[in-house]
Amino acid sequence: MTRRAAVVLLSGGLDSTTILALAASKGFTCHALTFRYGQRHAHELEAALRVAQWADVASHKIISFDLGAIGGSSLTTDAPIPKDRAPETLGHDIPSTYVPARNTIFLSFALAYAEVIGTGDIFIGVNAVDFSGYPDCRPEYIAAFEKMAMLATRAGSEGQRLRIHTPLIDLSKAEIIRIGLELGVDYAMTTSCYDPDAENRACGRCDACALRLQGFSQAGIIDPALYQSA
Amino acid sequence: MTRRAAVVLLSGGLDSTTILALAASKGFTCHALTFRYGQRHAHELEAALRVAQWADVASHKIISFDLGAIGGSSLTTDAPIPKDRAPETLGHDIPSTYVPARNTIFLSFALAYAEVIGTGDIFIGVNAVDFSGYPDCRPEYIAAFEKMAMLATRAGSEGQRLRIHTPLIDLSKAEIIRIGLELGVDYAMTTSCYDPDAENRACGRCDACALRLQGFSQAGIIDPALYQSA
Repeated sequence: MTRRAAVVLLSGGLDSTTILALAASKGFTCHALTFRYGQRHAHELEAALRVAQWADVASHKIISFDLGAIGGSSLTTDAPIPKDRAPETLGHDIPSTYVPARNTIFLSFALAYAEVIGTGDIFIGVNAVDFSGYPDCRPEYIAAFEKMAMLATRAGSEGQRLRIHTPLIDLSKAEIIRIGLELGVDYAMTTSCYDPDAENRACGRCDACALRLQGFSQAGIIDPALYQSA
Repeated sequence: MTRRAAVVLLSGGLDSTTILALAASKGFTCHALTFRYGQRHAHELEAALRVAQWADVASHKIISFDLGAIGGSSLTTDAPIPKDRAPETLGHDIPSTYVPARNTIFLSFALAYAEVIGTGDIFIGVNAVDFSGYPDCRPEYIAAFEKMAMLATRAGSEGQRLRIHTPLIDLSKAEIIRIGLELGVDYAMTTSCYDPDAENRACGRCDACALRLQGFSQAGIIDPALYQSA
């Protein structure tokens, strides 16, 4: 069997780590792509490096640019991170942690990398169930990106199929966690918090922590991540 | 009259400089966006800085990232630049100077910047007449990007119109030059060459030089750029 190559967007968080394990389990040779985009903390990058090593990826590229220069998000500027919002209220508005066009930028680089390594398969861990309400996590957005991408590249114009795989898009966080555990993911490698302390312990109070903690709770499993209150 | 803001992608070349002059002449307050993306030479960046100053733009952001790390193009790696191809033969294949997904990456950052400054107007100097055959210069690609972009952002999901303006897309290089000259553009500010020498003199032999020289010739005007053979 010839193994197909895939580009996997890897942030070092729970969703992208599960995606990487899933893509590998489906027989894809995985090429991970991580971004240092001006987020406040380096802890995401450290987690992505740990996860890529654990998954024994075929390659891992880290692309750096500063979205803080463009602004517009509490993740890349000094604006306060929203805290203590109830998980069940999330997804109904777009919070300040929204980074303008972030997934479009990430997928554009993935499209470039996919063309260079000669594949039309890209995996991204977007989720439209237990999510923060970001517009670029919705299925209609992903479908529109696929159509655009087919027209954007040499490969597409020569007839190569381009597929943005989003296997987590309809799953709850608890379901994602169960799938990852079945695939052998150790979620202690991953980080989700928007505002960890100096020792990289999660705050437990931002939207990302709230959704993660709710997911582990609903799955009936203890989150192995370190929290500040622990 | 309230002036509308626009993001203008500015490389410092002939097309993007003309676009900037055009957008300003239509009453847009222009915010220029330039990329240091791993191209071989800094001369493009210097030209973009000159042009932005000349046009007195409202802001000029320069975003840096290394597409050379991804590879796949003679513009960002050590692969040879094609030379001495006849202008009339260009556009029928995709040459090695094609940078995978470049316009998609550029437009994605423009989309982010447009959302932050609160506009839905983006100008890009793509051209599908006297061009090198790049897939991401075609009208159908631009239309697909617009559709995707409307779904990608907070602004789009709140109903804001998003428009990728491509006023040069159907024009010959000679027509573009005539429009620019009417708007007061001094093309000595601009640079087009893919392979200039250490003194930033154009090679006169790459595709970009060939198309530029043919355009000036057809417009009956002397190109004020410095060439190595001059």
